[in-house]
Amino acid sequence: MYDIIIIGAGPGGYEMAERAGHKGLKVLLIEKQYLGGVCLNWGCIPTKTLLNAAKHYVQAQEAEDFGVTTGEIGFDFSKIMARKTEVIQTLRAGIAAMMKKNQVEVLFGVAKLIGPRKVEVDGVTYEGENVVIAVGGSPIVPPIPGVDQPHVMTSKEILSIEEMPESLAVIGGGVIGIEFASFFSSLGVKVEVIEMLDEIIPFMDDEQVAQFRRVLKRKVKFNLGCRVTEIDGHIVKFTTKSGEEKAISADVVLMAVGRKPNLEGMGFEEAGLEFDRRGIRTDDQQRTNLPNVYAIGDVTGKSQLAHSATRMGEVALNTILGREDRFRTNAIPWAVYSLPEVAGCGLTQREAKAAGINVKTASLPLTMSGRFLAENGKRGPGSVKVVIDADTNLLLGVHMFGAYSSEIIWGAAAMIESGLRVQDAQEIVFPHPTVGEVIRSAMFQF
Amino acid sequence: MYDIIIIGAGPGGYEMAERAGHKGLKVLLIEKQYLGGVCLNWGCIPTKTLLNAAKHYVQAQEAEDFGVTTGEIGFDFSKIMARKTEVIQTLRAGIAAMMKKNQVEVLFGVAKLIGPRKVEVDGVTYEGENVVIAVGGSPIVPPIPGVDQPHVMTSKEILSIEEMPESLAVIGGGVIGIEFASFFSSLGVKVEVIEMLDEIIPFMDDEQVAQFRRVLKRKVKFNLGCRVTEIDGHIVKFTTKSGEEKAISADVVLMAVGRKPNLEGMGFEEAGLEFDRRGIRTDDQQRTNLPNVYAIGDVTGKSQLAHSATRMGEVALNTILGREDRFRTNAIPWAVYSLPEVAGCGLTQREAKAAGINVKTASLPLTMSGRFLAENGKRGPGSVKVVIDADTNLLLGVHMFGAYSSEIIWGAAAMIESGLRVQDAQEIVFPHPTVGEVIRSAMFQF
Repeated sequence: MYDIIIIGAGPGGYEMAERAGHKGLKVLLIEKQYLGGVCLNWGCIPTKTLLNAAKHYVQAQEAEDFGVTTGEIGFDFSKIMARKTEVIQTLRAGIAAMMKKNQVEVLFGVAKLIGPRKVEVDGVTYEGENVVIAVGGSPIVPPIPGVDQPHVMTSKEILSIEEMPESLAVIGGGVIGIEFASFFSSLGVKVEVIEMLDEIIPFMDDEQVAQFRRVLKRKVKFNLGCRVTEIDGHIVKFTTKSGEEKAISADVVLMAVGRKPNLEGMGFEEAGLEFDRRGIRTDDQQRTNLPNVYAIGDVTGKSQLAHSATRMGEVALNTILGREDRFRTNAIPWAVYSLPEVAGCGLTQREAKAAGINVKTASLPLTMSGRFLAENGKRGPGSVKVVIDADTNLLLGVHMFGAYSSEIIWGAAAMIESGLRVQDAQEIVFPHPTVGEVIRSAMFQF
Repeated sequence: MYDIIIIGAGPGGYEMAERAGHKGLKVLLIEKQYLGGVCLNWGCIPTKTLLNAAKHYVQAQEAEDFGVTTGEIGFDFSKIMARKTEVIQTLRAGIAAMMKKNQVEVLFGVAKLIGPRKVEVDGVTYEGENVVIAVGGSPIVPPIPGVDQPHVMTSKEILSIEEMPESLAVIGGGVIGIEFASFFSSLGVKVEVIEMLDEIIPFMDDEQVAQFRRVLKRKVKFNLGCRVTEIDGHIVKFTTKSGEEKAISADVVLMAVGRKPNLEGMGFEEAGLEFDRRGIRTDDQQRTNLPNVYAIGDVTGKSQLAHSATRMGEVALNTILGREDRFRTNAIPWAVYSLPEVAGCGLTQREAKAAGINVKTASLPLTMSGRFLAENGKRGPGSVKVVIDADTNLLLGVHMFGAYSSEIIWGAAAMIESGLRVQDAQEIVFPHPTVGEVIRSAMFQF
């Protein structure tokens, strides 16, 4: 009898296993393929490794502006891809070591839930006081004629291509689509994005996303408000907002229209689990409707972010241990690792208005920062927007794009989670000169 | 009659002028030379611009590891220096525009304090309800024989050299000395540091500074516990800890042994201002002993950081406006922009122990971070240490070195300033994958 059986070793499952093991619980972690799940093997980590190569490539091209001379700048696509594989393997080994260190038992195989405390793998039944479902999600492949062709790929297959395409059509302008568009276009691939909505990255601040898209447009062509109707060989056909029929040709087509929870083939329905429109239904403590069965991460559909999965695992563990906790979504930061980066935390102006809040905002360009100017020049794009409740002065959101955004944003989570008002936030000191300081300057605009 | 007369347009003075002007006060800002003070003209900004060039140079050399080919890498020293000047001029113009926008009157000239409400410039007397002294500090030049030679420079003169030296001796292993050592050694200059104490950067965590120095040692030679006795032409003579006499030869000698407050020639003593061993004596509200006279920044000697000066200015302004505030030093972050970067906030383990606190710490290497590994490889140096009070679980300090440290550290200020305990801090979510996340992982080691 285990204290906890965790199904799925992504950032939800393996982090929860680590923390539970660290506390001395007897943990079984079941994984069907690779430690690290989608995040490590086909998601966050490989894409960031590729984008880092693209950043080196672009920065080497720009080095002359800073007084550095180079020969001709090029790249070796197979070496970029090989490095990605190496990083994945190093981190996988790291997780295995971490599981061992925290005495987590790891079992490879496909799990089936056969009751509130029972899980079957390869005909063997394992019993646990608690069962945690952390089986993640998969790319959605819409039923468009032609999607079955080998050059039509999801984010999973495109990470294993051996040759760089000359042209790429990205269907979907969300985070995944934009990161791949940024990577390939930075290397010189002809990239077009086709997005059904009128704007990319739907949760971004309205003003910032328009500025951001203007920067990406230097290298990427956007077709917004367009619906793909067919992929005929290498021809992607789509209908524009005004009803016009258009077509583009692309060596590779990336399907990045969204992700869905993995709900099939693991006995969830048969065991009596209830679902909502997003995935397995859970409460704020990550409990499902079945006693002692928890669900965390993408399979709940609550938030499709690796760090949300980790946090849900912590909430589930605290709940199991009888410690009060709750999965809150008001201060979960997110980042897009494109060139330039984008990040945000908390409510956007639009979301706050929609919630009926009397909103005030302050925006500043990142060129306010001496460091930003030194490192990017006057034309470097970037900005910060701070969103507050005008009635209470409570800090509701911080949104930014430009260099270092992904590493800066967590401080906003610390401020929002601590319930700071503008006047409190003004007393937080930032080191000078940093890009992050622009957040502080924005606080003084109110 | 002005509401506030501010003497000195560094980051203490000009930011205070901006905030006071923004609030509608009538402000006179007096500056003897250039807007921006030492920070912008001979300090933070030029050094960061130079270090950014060095970073591009080093990253271009390392690009091949990431699959990017570059040809031969070189640099144009005069272009690097010219870009530095350009950045300074852009930012100076930015401050001028900001003063105008906030209706701050700017006067160039040397100010003399002639009474609690009176300041004289070029024979004209200006009256203000409040006077703020923000005249900064200057490099200390110790009375060592030979310091008067033209190739013996402080951080000010070395920023204007026209040719790169072949060798550089840096006297002093504090922040300024280490940043210049990192810059010049990255460009291939033969650099030796001579430091009187047994370790560089005295306020760094003991373990981290040793790790950090090991990385710098790949390019810089350190002579610790050594006292310089004479600079004879280009020969720098010093005595080691064991009493041995040594000498090194250097084209340029940088004096970076510390900075002192500017207290001379401005009528401070005659006006009756009192001093302590650090500079102008001020209370927690930045009040001096004279009524309505405040002092902020380096001239107080309380904290020699640009952002501390800014914060002191805000405290002085709040005090003038009758709003309660206090200059606190427990959550002021700092950063060293060397390659690699170093940053910290709050108490180190040593400081906390010395204060009689029952200290607990947790350390992790940055290679725990998938992003760090992707961008720097397995051998990339870096670590995080979190310091807490074991009795109360209160977060006391966060210390780190490695990529992005300078931009990450402000979140630690937000946490410490908000009075978070470990269990609260564990609930702050970081985006994945980031380098900053290692702080979060460290929180879970307790």
